[in-house]
Amino acid sequence: MKNIHIILVETTHPGNIGASARAMKTMGLYSLRLVNPKIFPSADATVRAAGADDILSEATLHETLADAVGDCKFVYGTSTRKRNLQCEVLSPVSMAGEISKFIYDNVNIGIVFGRERTGLTNTELDLCDKMIAIPANPAFSSLNLASAVQIVCYEVMKAFSVNEQTTMIDMPKVIPVERAELERFYAHLEQCLIDVEFLDPDKPRRLMRRLKQMFNRIGMDQNEYNMMRGVLTAIQEKIRQR
Amino acid sequence: MKNIHIILVETTHPGNIGASARAMKTMGLYSLRLVNPKIFPSADATVRAAGADDILSEATLHETLADAVGDCKFVYGTSTRKRNLQCEVLSPVSMAGEISKFIYDNVNIGIVFGRERTGLTNTELDLCDKMIAIPANPAFSSLNLASAVQIVCYEVMKAFSVNEQTTMIDMPKVIPVERAELERFYAHLEQCLIDVEFLDPDKPRRLMRRLKQMFNRIGMDQNEYNMMRGVLTAIQEKIRQR
Repeated sequence: MKNIHIILVETTHPGNIGASARAMKTMGLYSLRLVNPKIFPSADATVRAAGADDILSEATLHETLADAVGDCKFVYGTSTRKRNLQCEVLSPVSMAGEISKFIYDNVNIGIVFGRERTGLTNTELDLCDKMIAIPANPAFSSLNLASAVQIVCYEVMKAFSVNEQTTMIDMPKVIPVERAELERFYAHLEQCLIDVEFLDPDKPRRLMRRLKQMFNRIGMDQNEYNMMRGVLTAIQEKIRQR
Repeated sequence: MKNIHIILVETTHPGNIGASARAMKTMGLYSLRLVNPKIFPSADATVRAAGADDILSEATLHETLADAVGDCKFVYGTSTRKRNLQCEVLSPVSMAGEISKFIYDNVNIGIVFGRERTGLTNTELDLCDKMIAIPANPAFSSLNLASAVQIVCYEVMKAFSVNEQTTMIDMPKVIPVERAELERFYAHLEQCLIDVEFLDPDKPRRLMRRLKQMFNRIGMDQNEYNMMRGVLTAIQEKIRQR
């Protein structure tokens, strides 16, 4: 499960980073990525890791979430707040079942956890293909960060263990392009929409966000990516012939 | 779920009691019983409860486990260590499924968690009808006490909820456009690709099929459909300006 990366965004309390590392290791997950943590490294983190300090010492630091998920082909965001999103929302069980299909494919998968109080920003959510909603008490849904990591990693471990694995219909697997590549497509799309004067860069409104939320749902593979880049280039060339 | 009692035996760190209360409340469980805790009440417990202090203030104190489980008809002990036990060992999922059958029967059920380092004694285990073994990394199975409580309560909540889907995030339902409308989008897309000379109508190859297979995965709703039709129209108008 070395290709499954737990990504913590701007964690405030270093103790939560340590507790998350411990939660990961108990469930057999080892790759931790930290986006701009408030305090790290920290003695608090090491104490709460309680033997999972190898995960802390191998954790990578990132300036932005875009950087942390750049090599990931599937990116899942976690949330307990209501969001007005046009993306698929999965239970932890469904998410784990989904990623377990890629166990032998050497595909990088990112699971993103937001700030303790405020979660993920809309821009960060746009980097996620799907959301994971952890079932919780509607009257008190404030899971501790490490508890959320614990539940998600627990479901991943269950899905990957032979015992509890259900027999799944062998669906043709679409292996999406890496996130960084998808972002290049979005940049190209944006420029193309400016070129055809559909998008006014001075009044962008929510257009690109809506397009990203829609295209995120595709899980575009390499061939489709190449095809779409070709379409955009053809449009731009046709315009420049004027 | 008021008849399900979480029972912590001789907890050393009061912070773990608070974190367990929080874990319980996030999953809709409210009854906490403490057997001979080392320090309680405690400011550490209240801080870590983070809003679940109602559970702490209503927690009952017991001298012995025998007293704490006295009114329970089913008692489950938890363990991550190998035990040489002659009792049934269940996964958290199986345990939760079992107790969910008694939801309307007003039956008291106790779920027992041992000491942080040493777990439950053999005498205490004799008070348990069955064991719950939380799946964990064989190389590092040391779950934090509150994490173990979190996982068990999470499975209880899942089993008691009608389905596994969360009610927290009101998943905005994407209602796709009718097929006939989608076909109009495809016809428009095809014409647009001919206009920009990306598609040669004399040698169409598999291009439109591949694009349809990709766009089919979106499940485009009415707003997205209108947006995409707008994009195509803008491209065509830009070209015609030549």
